[in-house]
Amino acid sequence: MNKYLKVDDWCIIEEGFDPKNHRSSESIFSLGNGRMGQRANFEEKYSGNTLQGTYIGGVYYTDKTRVGWWKNGYPEYFAKVLNAPYWNGIYVEINNEQLDLGVCKVRDFTRILNMKEGYLERSFIAIMPNGNEVKVNARRFISMANKEIAAIRYALTPLNFSGDILFTSSIDGDIINEDANYNEKFWDVLETDALNGEAYLRSQTKKTNFQVGVGIKYAITLGGNEYPVLEDETIIDQNYVANKVSVFVEKGKQVCFYKYIAVLSSMNHNVSDLLPNAKILVNDACSKGFDTLLEEHRLVWKEIWEHSDIVIEGDVEAQQGIRFNIFQLKQTYTGDDARLNIGPKGFTGEKYGGSTYWDTEAYCVPFYLSTADAKVTRNLLIYRYKQLDKAIENGQKLGFTDGAALYPMVTMNGEECHNEWEITFEEIHRNGAIAYAIYRYINYTGDDFYLEEYGLEVLTAIARFWAQRATFSEARKKYVILGVTGPNEYENNVNNNWYTNKIATWCMKYAIECLEKVKSRSTDRFLELVEKLKLDYKAETRKWQEIIDQMYFPEEKELGIFLQQDGYMDKEQILAADLNPEIRPLNQHWSWDRILRSCFIKQADVLQGIYFFEKEYDDACIKRNFDFYESRTVHESSLSPCVHSILAARIGDMTKAYNLYLRTARLDLDDYNKEAHEGLHITSMAGTWMSIVEGFGGMRIKEGILSFQPAIPESWKSYSFKVMYRKNILNVRVQHGKVIIFNEEGGVMELAVYGKKYKIVENSKIEI
Amino acid sequence: MNKYLKVDDWCIIEEGFDPKNHRSSESIFSLGNGRMGQRANFEEKYSGNTLQGTYIGGVYYTDKTRVGWWKNGYPEYFAKVLNAPYWNGIYVEINNEQLDLGVCKVRDFTRILNMKEGYLERSFIAIMPNGNEVKVNARRFISMANKEIAAIRYALTPLNFSGDILFTSSIDGDIINEDANYNEKFWDVLETDALNGEAYLRSQTKKTNFQVGVGIKYAITLGGNEYPVLEDETIIDQNYVANKVSVFVEKGKQVCFYKYIAVLSSMNHNVSDLLPNAKILVNDACSKGFDTLLEEHRLVWKEIWEHSDIVIEGDVEAQQGIRFNIFQLKQTYTGDDARLNIGPKGFTGEKYGGSTYWDTEAYCVPFYLSTADAKVTRNLLIYRYKQLDKAIENGQKLGFTDGAALYPMVTMNGEECHNEWEITFEEIHRNGAIAYAIYRYINYTGDDFYLEEYGLEVLTAIARFWAQRATFSEARKKYVILGVTGPNEYENNVNNNWYTNKIATWCMKYAIECLEKVKSRSTDRFLELVEKLKLDYKAETRKWQEIIDQMYFPEEKELGIFLQQDGYMDKEQILAADLNPEIRPLNQHWSWDRILRSCFIKQADVLQGIYFFEKEYDDACIKRNFDFYESRTVHESSLSPCVHSILAARIGDMTKAYNLYLRTARLDLDDYNKEAHEGLHITSMAGTWMSIVEGFGGMRIKEGILSFQPAIPESWKSYSFKVMYRKNILNVRVQHGKVIIFNEEGGVMELAVYGKKYKIVENSKIEI
Repeated sequence: MNKYLKVDDWCIIEEGFDPKNHRSSESIFSLGNGRMGQRANFEEKYSGNTLQGTYIGGVYYTDKTRVGWWKNGYPEYFAKVLNAPYWNGIYVEINNEQLDLGVCKVRDFTRILNMKEGYLERSFIAIMPNGNEVKVNARRFISMANKEIAAIRYALTPLNFSGDILFTSSIDGDIINEDANYNEKFWDVLETDALNGEAYLRSQTKKTNFQVGVGIKYAITLGGNEYPVLEDETIIDQNYVANKVSVFVEKGKQVCFYKYIAVLSSMNHNVSDLLPNAKILVNDACSKGFDTLLEEHRLVWKEIWEHSDIVIEGDVEAQQGIRFNIFQLKQTYTGDDARLNIGPKGFTGEKYGGSTYWDTEAYCVPFYLSTADAKVTRNLLIYRYKQLDKAIENGQKLGFTDGAALYPMVTMNGEECHNEWEITFEEIHRNGAIAYAIYRYINYTGDDFYLEEYGLEVLTAIARFWAQRATFSEARKKYVILGVTGPNEYENNVNNNWYTNKIATWCMKYAIECLEKVKSRSTDRFLELVEKLKLDYKAETRKWQEIIDQMYFPEEKELGIFLQQDGYMDKEQILAADLNPEIRPLNQHWSWDRILRSCFIKQADVLQGIYFFEKEYDDACIKRNFDFYESRTVHESSLSPCVHSILAARIGDMTKAYNLYLRTARLDLDDYNKEAHEGLHITSMAGTWMSIVEGFGGMRIKEGILSFQPAIPESWKSYSFKVMYRKNILNVRVQHGKVIIFNEEGGVMELAVYGKKYKIVENSKIEI
Repeated sequence: MNKYLKVDDWCIIEEGFDPKNHRSSESIFSLGNGRMGQRANFEEKYSGNTLQGTYIGGVYYTDKTRVGWWKNGYPEYFAKVLNAPYWNGIYVEINNEQLDLGVCKVRDFTRILNMKEGYLERSFIAIMPNGNEVKVNARRFISMANKEIAAIRYALTPLNFSGDILFTSSIDGDIINEDANYNEKFWDVLETDALNGEAYLRSQTKKTNFQVGVGIKYAITLGGNEYPVLEDETIIDQNYVANKVSVFVEKGKQVCFYKYIAVLSSMNHNVSDLLPNAKILVNDACSKGFDTLLEEHRLVWKEIWEHSDIVIEGDVEAQQGIRFNIFQLKQTYTGDDARLNIGPKGFTGEKYGGSTYWDTEAYCVPFYLSTADAKVTRNLLIYRYKQLDKAIENGQKLGFTDGAALYPMVTMNGEECHNEWEITFEEIHRNGAIAYAIYRYINYTGDDFYLEEYGLEVLTAIARFWAQRATFSEARKKYVILGVTGPNEYENNVNNNWYTNKIATWCMKYAIECLEKVKSRSTDRFLELVEKLKLDYKAETRKWQEIIDQMYFPEEKELGIFLQQDGYMDKEQILAADLNPEIRPLNQHWSWDRILRSCFIKQADVLQGIYFFEKEYDDACIKRNFDFYESRTVHESSLSPCVHSILAARIGDMTKAYNLYLRTARLDLDDYNKEAHEGLHITSMAGTWMSIVEGFGGMRIKEGILSFQPAIPESWKSYSFKVMYRKNILNVRVQHGKVIIFNEEGGVMELAVYGKKYKIVENSKIEI
């Protein structure tokens, strides 16, 4: 843990400049708008350790799969998140010396992420090696109101001299990915242009042929007055364009350099329009001016916060944590482009590649169901529905037949794009999460029509997969599922992972139930689907039922727990608490084989299953499993603490629930796993939301009724959250000894609190 | 299986040109001399499907390890066998048209690998699109007598025209590896030069900075007479040099283009000397002339065959197979450079990378022990001894301490250079093979001194590794070894692989035995080693003994077999014979996960252990295990059939033994596994030799006495092989009903045949 940042309700604050933390801060202070994003790289030159990162949603590169030993079924490529042309640069030169925090003395440095209004601000005083002292305040944002626009205000005041300040505002197309083979490049710059005040660059990705056009335009004020530039110096290189302009500034006077940026991609424009449209956009932005653009941007954030804020009284750390999580989620995915999804690092780093993981279905769906219109979640489901053909193809590549679908573990466009076999080929439980998201969506929204229109095809294809994937063990006289990786990725290629066996049978059960439902409710549609899917209804469901009835589940009977997988008890049973803190996180200290043969669990596995299917288990059973597995779980996956927190709250262990909440909420802020420098854990941030609403708030749907079982951590005064449930919006406020639920809109609503049913009419509340 | 090549005692013969088989033929007809080698690429232009491959022993590139998800302990790089500057080209242009078998009509095509004399010859008649008809005969070799020289004689006769023949003799530095990321290049050409008759190119590998200098010089005869070239056209490009010369040839007359090539590397020369020395070498070669060079080369081969030939009467396929195997082995490794080892594909393809695998110790050692001076094998052991420090470092990277060594799975220089975790981190049984090779060497040569001088340090470091790698299972009250990949790589990350547990305990046992031996025989040296190794003799060996005594070995008691690993019987038990031949080899048809969860075995695993420790098991036990595992083994590793063949012979199943012999001997010739196009299986070729000598010949060392238990396949008339055993050379000839052993040199020798002891004086024989 690294308690480096200041605690505040609405802002993330870094005080004092410590180059050691810079890469982490670049991640944490990242900005994005769902369409594009950028790490918090400095505008001026920085010679210190930095990870330059500018990313555009959906723009990727396909690294050829290269392994020492080719395994049949490998995808041809690994889709890599691509660092895109860098538009952030405002270099500052004073008396032939670059302003560079890597070599200056730095005083009064603060970096602030204002989450309420969605901008990044940085101020400092720099004493340059040549003695010049300047004060800088730089503010920037990537517009939520116009998704192709960003703007920077770079204000500089000479403190101990008067002189020429030379600004160089650039677009740099000569960029690399840090993970590339030495200096391999992935972009070809096609066009560069610059004229007085403006510059343009158009670039194309190798192999994937995405094009990106960037335009920049600047304006200057001096001492608050517009400063007209008659002619600047333009630089047009093969991979780089810039405008250079020199301004004489008197000591104590402030010069403001405004940079407006337009970023367009061929996903939304004809390639021939990229630069012409960039020119229009950037000139429009410049005419509007920084303040107006920021105000438009701020209003979008205001709207977002009105629907999704969670207020915690009495615990600023917790408050900051949940807002940071919600802020980053909303920066990454806005739900208005059906081709995009929620990448696990969003726009904050290169790591992982791909954009869609099981994270979306397993963790993000509840957040969007409760904080956005149902159609946002519906779009996430439709995204998978549209990729069903490719999932069936993917299944075929791995030898499955007759319409069995295996969704990719990682994808950009429906094709598998990750190529570690133990993940791609074996982490098949993702198929279960995709089915489970359909169940969750229908259960939450009551949109039964979705089932017959889209859901059932996906469910059938998934059930078919499981039926083919399970095999019968003559030795056990049971069905088994061999050679899988469960949610706990610190085990690979294991047999009978309890969670996988569990979700596999659930998928088949749910598919049978849904087929029956549609059959009885909508016979025509049923027959149409039977035809379309070439479904041998009786024979297939009979087979599914046979597997459901005879599935093997590993258990450790003496301890009364479900066993994560066959052979787990052969491991040396050590508790996470007994590990030397110096070797945590294990994945940075232990080699992979050591991790694999240890008993330590990366993330909720059996407990993930208990979380999904909680209704099937009594309190004592949940507690036994929680106690056993929580003590062996090192939570080195960001997706882990939230589930454990929810279950801890479920069994009434609020201390544990609270600590695990902090771990998920402040995972990156406090850098628990020492990896914030690589980017943020975006998808697990939805789990933080779940920890409050499902964990502390105890929100469930029980027999179609929204139910709450609120509890509150000792140190909190209160917390409140909003949920949209079908046509209602509720505001739930929990204090010690009191729960207040306000029905904001949607007519009368029935709900349950602590097992007792209530009805609340619109615009009124209940207090319990 | 692809029965495409003609059968012959001493030659490999391809008749008729089939582009579909060209890549395979390029592998099979490869040439090498231990220092360098080349696939059988055509000299003239070829626009068809080809894999250009020119390789230089020890010259590699370090591809950065790049994975979606970094696992701690990964080596930083993957060492890639590098395609080197291409010196083979003799382009032929007639009437402005390139001679190109990709577009010509081809008649009377033959390609012959003359294994007795070590050259490649190709002849054909080509009818070019422009109607010109030419007859070509091209012969080349890479000299075994001078390891830096190669030569080509390219003879051409116009059949239906008289005209100018334009030859372009080149060195091409602009080469790629097929496995590179699209067009990534790995060489920088530093220097190019050409003058009348000669051309030179010096090139450097990126990152690893190896330099290679190539020189070429040509001479021409016309109608058998020297054809002086006063001035040719020289081409000097950035990455390419060539000499162009035009010769007027009358119809029916033969023009011979002789190309002499010198290839030098910075492993043996100062970089500034590379081209000057190449110039000297290539001019010397040219002065000597093709026939003299070939004769020198032929004499080396004569010597090799005198010591290592195996003669089979009555079965030309089997005869050709064993000679091909011996030929390729001797082309790949000559034992005169201690920095080189035996790469699994030798100089015949890009695949695998690295140069040293466990193959060397587990398969090649017996071949060299019996067919070469003991110092050759000793050098192979010393190679590992010299890398002990790096093996200890490698162990440390994976968390082992106190002098425990884990030798790399794949290496160029002692560092691990392969980066698939299931192989690198988990295929730890390689450590056992390295210890076993020491045992074999000492047992065979009687060179006990090797033990105290070198062997014991390696054995101790390996025993320490196993002692740390085994863990105690409270559930079983036994030591277990979790998370390994055994020799059967169609299982990954399994628990208690029987072979691994077996060789681990054997290593500790043997280390204890050797320590005791040295302690009692050579106390001073023992104390010196105790000091050097910081050995706590009593405590450490006590711990080893405890693990030996309490090691868990999985068994299937009902069937009376050793179980390959925990959980093996949970798999669907299908026999290899019941597989549809169309899906063989499985690794080209089944995805990796399907292979992993199937019962099919890539290569000998339990049987590998039984082969090593045969003495411990009775016939019935060997037979039970053989029958069980052979029926489940698909032999998709080249290293598999030889061991099965030996055991089949051991249990008297000569039909099976013979079929498995053919499979190993003709694996590439008949392309059993449909992968000859990627290169040949060099190391397993030593296994072919073992199949005859240890399998059919039944050669063992029993209580220090060389013993034979000869049997002969039904269809053979006789077979004979030579073995060097300590100071003797024996010639063993086996016929039906008769064994003749001739003691060629070394004084009187005691040996056993069919369990009965004999003494043979020098220069005499026994007949049994």
